[in-house]
Amino acid sequence: MDLPQIYQLSEMLEFCRKTRENRQTIALVPTMGALHQGHLSLVEHAAQLADRVVVSIFVNPTQFAPHEDFAAYPRTLGEDAAKLAQYPAVVIFAPQTSELYPSGFQTVVANEGLGLTLCAKRRPQLFRGVCTIIAKLCNITRADFLLFGRKDFQQLRVVEQMVADLNFPCTVVGSPLVRARDGVALSSRNVFLSQEQRQEARMISQGLWRARDLFQGGERRAQPLLAAVANAIAEAPGLAVEYLWLGRWDTLEECVELSVPGIILCAVHAGTVRLIDNIELGL
Amino acid sequence: MDLPQIYQLSEMLEFCRKTRENRQTIALVPTMGALHQGHLSLVEHAAQLADRVVVSIFVNPTQFAPHEDFAAYPRTLGEDAAKLAQYPAVVIFAPQTSELYPSGFQTVVANEGLGLTLCAKRRPQLFRGVCTIIAKLCNITRADFLLFGRKDFQQLRVVEQMVADLNFPCTVVGSPLVRARDGVALSSRNVFLSQEQRQEARMISQGLWRARDLFQGGERRAQPLLAAVANAIAEAPGLAVEYLWLGRWDTLEECVELSVPGIILCAVHAGTVRLIDNIELGL
Repeated sequence: MDLPQIYQLSEMLEFCRKTRENRQTIALVPTMGALHQGHLSLVEHAAQLADRVVVSIFVNPTQFAPHEDFAAYPRTLGEDAAKLAQYPAVVIFAPQTSELYPSGFQTVVANEGLGLTLCAKRRPQLFRGVCTIIAKLCNITRADFLLFGRKDFQQLRVVEQMVADLNFPCTVVGSPLVRARDGVALSSRNVFLSQEQRQEARMISQGLWRARDLFQGGERRAQPLLAAVANAIAEAPGLAVEYLWLGRWDTLEECVELSVPGIILCAVHAGTVRLIDNIELGL
Repeated sequence: MDLPQIYQLSEMLEFCRKTRENRQTIALVPTMGALHQGHLSLVEHAAQLADRVVVSIFVNPTQFAPHEDFAAYPRTLGEDAAKLAQYPAVVIFAPQTSELYPSGFQTVVANEGLGLTLCAKRRPQLFRGVCTIIAKLCNITRADFLLFGRKDFQQLRVVEQMVADLNFPCTVVGSPLVRARDGVALSSRNVFLSQEQRQEARMISQGLWRARDLFQGGERRAQPLLAAVANAIAEAPGLAVEYLWLGRWDTLEECVELSVPGIILCAVHAGTVRLIDNIELGL
């Protein structure tokens, strides 16, 4: 079956208007394409929540800095559409940059709390770009549900905060992180890993699992939990840690010792490929 | 007749939901209260456009700097409600600050073009605060129409830009500036003018009208048009010009000579009272 693929903003607006008129609900799965099983798990989750699932495929320029990998980011629309063909509720929205960011565009949505730490220290425009495009997509689709993966955990929290702060009439849903069989968190950027880098990248999840085992054994202090991850990553000489952090799950406040549900977040570079990963530590 | 007055966010959401369910349209007139005939002209305009008119009355703290007149801003909810009683379509929404800006609020909507010049040079947080609260009110009400006075012309353009840039599903309508019989543009802050300052404030509109007369006589150069305003204001020794500016109506680009529809914008201080005014110069 050929899925509907919508390229024009006006057509998307019309599709969403008609869907609402028919009293059907809409879930939005915002992606930058290069879909993997993590994205597909979001689509499956979305299809359980709503009548129609809009999968947006748009490599959003405003969340990349000039030196970042916007141009190189994988673009595989044909393959993405083929992967989505198994979900009859899906409509693909693949807009043109010139329609979403016409000449003279000048409004930004930014987070001045959670969105300034961790990934934002290295990528200061990341969450401004994310919040801006998600605000736009929420308004275009008027989605009832908005789905994000828990792999990009800080992004999930920043978007949840935006939806709450700006009273967007939708529910944000965070879907579980999906790992490959070798433990590496699924990411569209994994295609850039050499075979050797891929081998080394396994040490990130190995380290996170070691920390989780310690945590489940009763350890609550940040130092030994983070050391377990750091030591595992150090076994792979090609990996360089950008940040390795433990804090509260809800506010992303750093913790010396966990007394509430927490999370370990990390960003690690394998050559020019930047990988992020995390493990949630429920109490 | 007693108009509905809604203080709780949850009640407002429910009112708007039911209104839409009944296939009635909503126009939003966002105000900070202290209503005058300018506001009422917006309400009248709104009632022509939509079935129900939500008049929000909320002195928005995020658009004031610490040294500005947030605390002193006039608050006259009882009188405001009495003035609105003649409009049966109206629902008043007077929310609590703690409901619109709960602890931990951290998202901002900002304009990085039009919103950085003119009034923003003196009041850098003004349009960030305006965009943020209007984004919230749009999402809360899902209004079909959003009404602003053309007296606050830069604000109108910044909000129009936000609605376009972020794809808010509503139409922004700018209603004509309303002047008192003495020519002074209506503003909630006029109550702070002494009798003498009020007399002097008349020179602002006098100057703008002299410029309009010159323009209608064929003058297109900024220098003589602005000199006409400046000279009139200079006749009132108690007035101090903050800015006096001529530019394009649409992009707010400054012009040396008008070849497209333009506008003269000014901010003038009468003691501690800051007055803004403008005149549109259609070609």
